[in-house]
Amino acid sequence: MKTTSALFRGLDAYIRSVREEFEEKLAALIEIPTVSMEPERKSEIERGAHLAAEYLRELGATVEIVPTPGHPVVFGRLITDPKNPTVTLYNHLDVQPADPEEWRTPPFTFVREDGRYFGRGTTDDKGPALTALLAVRYALENGVPLNVHFIWELEEEIGSPNFARFMQKKRKQLRTDVVVVSDTIWIARNRPTIPYGLRGLLGLTLTLETGKKDAHSGVTGGPARNPIGELCQLICECYDPRTGRVKIPGFYDDVRKVTRRELENYLASGFDVRRFMRVHEFTSLRTTDPVRVVRGIMAEPTFEVHGIVGGYRGPGIKTIIPPRAEAKVSMRLVPDQDVEKIFRLVSEFIRSKNPDVVIQRAGTLRPYLGPFTGPYADAARRAMKFAFGKEPAFTREGGSIGAVVIMEEYLRAPIIFLGLSLPEHGYHAPNENYDWPQTAGGIKMFVHYFADLSQRP
Amino acid sequence: MKTTSALFRGLDAYIRSVREEFEEKLAALIEIPTVSMEPERKSEIERGAHLAAEYLRELGATVEIVPTPGHPVVFGRLITDPKNPTVTLYNHLDVQPADPEEWRTPPFTFVREDGRYFGRGTTDDKGPALTALLAVRYALENGVPLNVHFIWELEEEIGSPNFARFMQKKRKQLRTDVVVVSDTIWIARNRPTIPYGLRGLLGLTLTLETGKKDAHSGVTGGPARNPIGELCQLICECYDPRTGRVKIPGFYDDVRKVTRRELENYLASGFDVRRFMRVHEFTSLRTTDPVRVVRGIMAEPTFEVHGIVGGYRGPGIKTIIPPRAEAKVSMRLVPDQDVEKIFRLVSEFIRSKNPDVVIQRAGTLRPYLGPFTGPYADAARRAMKFAFGKEPAFTREGGSIGAVVIMEEYLRAPIIFLGLSLPEHGYHAPNENYDWPQTAGGIKMFVHYFADLSQRP
Repeated sequence: MKTTSALFRGLDAYIRSVREEFEEKLAALIEIPTVSMEPERKSEIERGAHLAAEYLRELGATVEIVPTPGHPVVFGRLITDPKNPTVTLYNHLDVQPADPEEWRTPPFTFVREDGRYFGRGTTDDKGPALTALLAVRYALENGVPLNVHFIWELEEEIGSPNFARFMQKKRKQLRTDVVVVSDTIWIARNRPTIPYGLRGLLGLTLTLETGKKDAHSGVTGGPARNPIGELCQLICECYDPRTGRVKIPGFYDDVRKVTRRELENYLASGFDVRRFMRVHEFTSLRTTDPVRVVRGIMAEPTFEVHGIVGGYRGPGIKTIIPPRAEAKVSMRLVPDQDVEKIFRLVSEFIRSKNPDVVIQRAGTLRPYLGPFTGPYADAARRAMKFAFGKEPAFTREGGSIGAVVIMEEYLRAPIIFLGLSLPEHGYHAPNENYDWPQTAGGIKMFVHYFADLSQRP
Repeated sequence: MKTTSALFRGLDAYIRSVREEFEEKLAALIEIPTVSMEPERKSEIERGAHLAAEYLRELGATVEIVPTPGHPVVFGRLITDPKNPTVTLYNHLDVQPADPEEWRTPPFTFVREDGRYFGRGTTDDKGPALTALLAVRYALENGVPLNVHFIWELEEEIGSPNFARFMQKKRKQLRTDVVVVSDTIWIARNRPTIPYGLRGLLGLTLTLETGKKDAHSGVTGGPARNPIGELCQLICECYDPRTGRVKIPGFYDDVRKVTRRELENYLASGFDVRRFMRVHEFTSLRTTDPVRVVRGIMAEPTFEVHGIVGGYRGPGIKTIIPPRAEAKVSMRLVPDQDVEKIFRLVSEFIRSKNPDVVIQRAGTLRPYLGPFTGPYADAARRAMKFAFGKEPAFTREGGSIGAVVIMEEYLRAPIIFLGLSLPEHGYHAPNENYDWPQTAGGIKMFVHYFADLSQRP
């Protein structure tokens, strides 16, 4: 390996030299519509997996396209020396659906405009995957003593239903020192963000049946039970919809207190309430106090109702009392809430309030809390500072990433989020894009991080 | 006119003699599917109107098929002498839709089995209409000094949207002394029932918009408002879904107290809680105390939620926060609640709880209270006793009949309900039927009522 300074000295020239190759490789990937949500895309997903495997083989990796009952996982290994430390790079190559009507340019055509790249999957997550790949090539060609595993998933956008199966199957080959996930979004362009936590999820369907057919609200209204009304009542016993406060006793008991330093980091991320409202197109919020908003998303659990099924939905009013109704609800959970304990608490509470309600689980994810301090986090901080000129803010994400929780369970290694997407990249939105400055900065960031890792004992 | 006793002496023989004619006429009407709810039935409705007009002309009536922006009204007049009292017979000839899959016999084929007649519309309301017609013929042929108006509506099953237009148009020819509505159901076969009241209706849609697109409940949950949750909360502030008790201040102020005699009548109607549950296929009720059930339907107002639109309804859970939701609610109102006053009360209450909710009216019907005592009610009581051997119970209906409230407003005459349908006739249900005993008894009842009316000064 070169000295660190020699390594970095050649980096800018390398980055300039690979720009065309990056754009060509990204274009080829973008033009394969790997939409995991659409069953008719099965063969495109296969095509995407093969192209990705080819990119990894060019790099010198041993690659396997690991089948699952759903879409495969592309698994590449580049072992320089078994004694070297190993980093696992997680990205995903499946993309969200795209409605061409909503796009300025065709979503599956790669369009380049002044260093900005348009197309479904550019920022989520094909661009960052290729950015990491080019950084690996530079690091290894320059003798950085590191083994690299690539895990490129193709079911991330559908909640990683088969990812645990993949982990189970390849368990023995997956041993790693650290995992780098590059699939997150900064909060503002001018401030790198490193998330170190994710909320968990507990989804429930609550069903209440009080009859077998629609009843006439005139002929039966009064003595007839109304399952929609009773579910509304149950929901309001579980939480206060206006404030969001959960009313189930014990629900907040294990919520880990946020330190002042954590909160300072959240606020320093560039979070802006007005931009938050604009991006998500909210006309109002429960609160516009930045501290409460930021804490509400990053560090507090929620209770949410997603829909109520049953009853009449057409125009005007049809005066029926429906025989049954179903409420779809979920809770976002935070460290150190335990999903099973919360499930017990909530189920008992619901049974005590309305014993006729049938509770079904629909989705479970543990909350995740990774390192915020310590060597791996410090290395990430230095890499971001080196690449983008600014200390990153450490934040937590309000969402949940299934694959992360699964990797934590199987790999038992620290997971570091080195994301490159920006709010203006239109994650999951029409006109999704990525850009060359984030690519160039990203290569720098990864190379620095790899060099740093390789020097750890 | 014959003496009353001579009039009644020939009645049984007449009834026997018209059985075949009744069945043929009913068969012809049933086999025209006059489903007012189905736009493609427009020409069937026209055919039905023409056949009905022919029946009335045979009787000697002057008939007009009065067009409206929707389906027409068949209006027949039989004026024996302008000095005679006039009775208006209201029935409807449109029917509910019928799904042949659910029927034992084809719904629009007239099937006769041991004096029972199957087919959509047999009991609701073609059978009762023809029963009244045959009674009119006997009464007039035997010199009962009475003028008769027939109003045969063809939009009853869709809420009589154009009935007021018809009334307005024909206002001058509609003057009457009394209206007889034959479109109600006894509570048990062994006890005739005469309803004298109907609940009113105030329908509302409550819409709340807090954003413009689906939001991710992880990325935004906490500060994001949830319009479904807030509507659930508003609904539970309006009423207690478990008990049905309305919580809006002042809501019960004008509810007329039910007298002990009224309540005794309700209970004497043969109302049975277990049968009520079986017929409407309820698995449980708010209460099974017969007094509370009967009072709840006949004499108390309600608040009901019919559906909540917005959010996710597919399988499992989709963790979105929807941008808007709409609750469809209605209140059944009882005498002497005033619809406009209640609307003001409810609107102000909702605004005070959640000012962002947009309130839209969707349907208004005043509650109706007709004579329970007095000459027209007494005549009805005697007619029922004469025909069926038992004093009728005077009850109130939990539902609302739009045409009744409209007739009350335009005709300003007492409205008497002389219904003939039985619970086992399957009103609005598959295998709807009517029967000869109710027809025969019905002809007797009408003839007695007409004779009684004609003798009033």
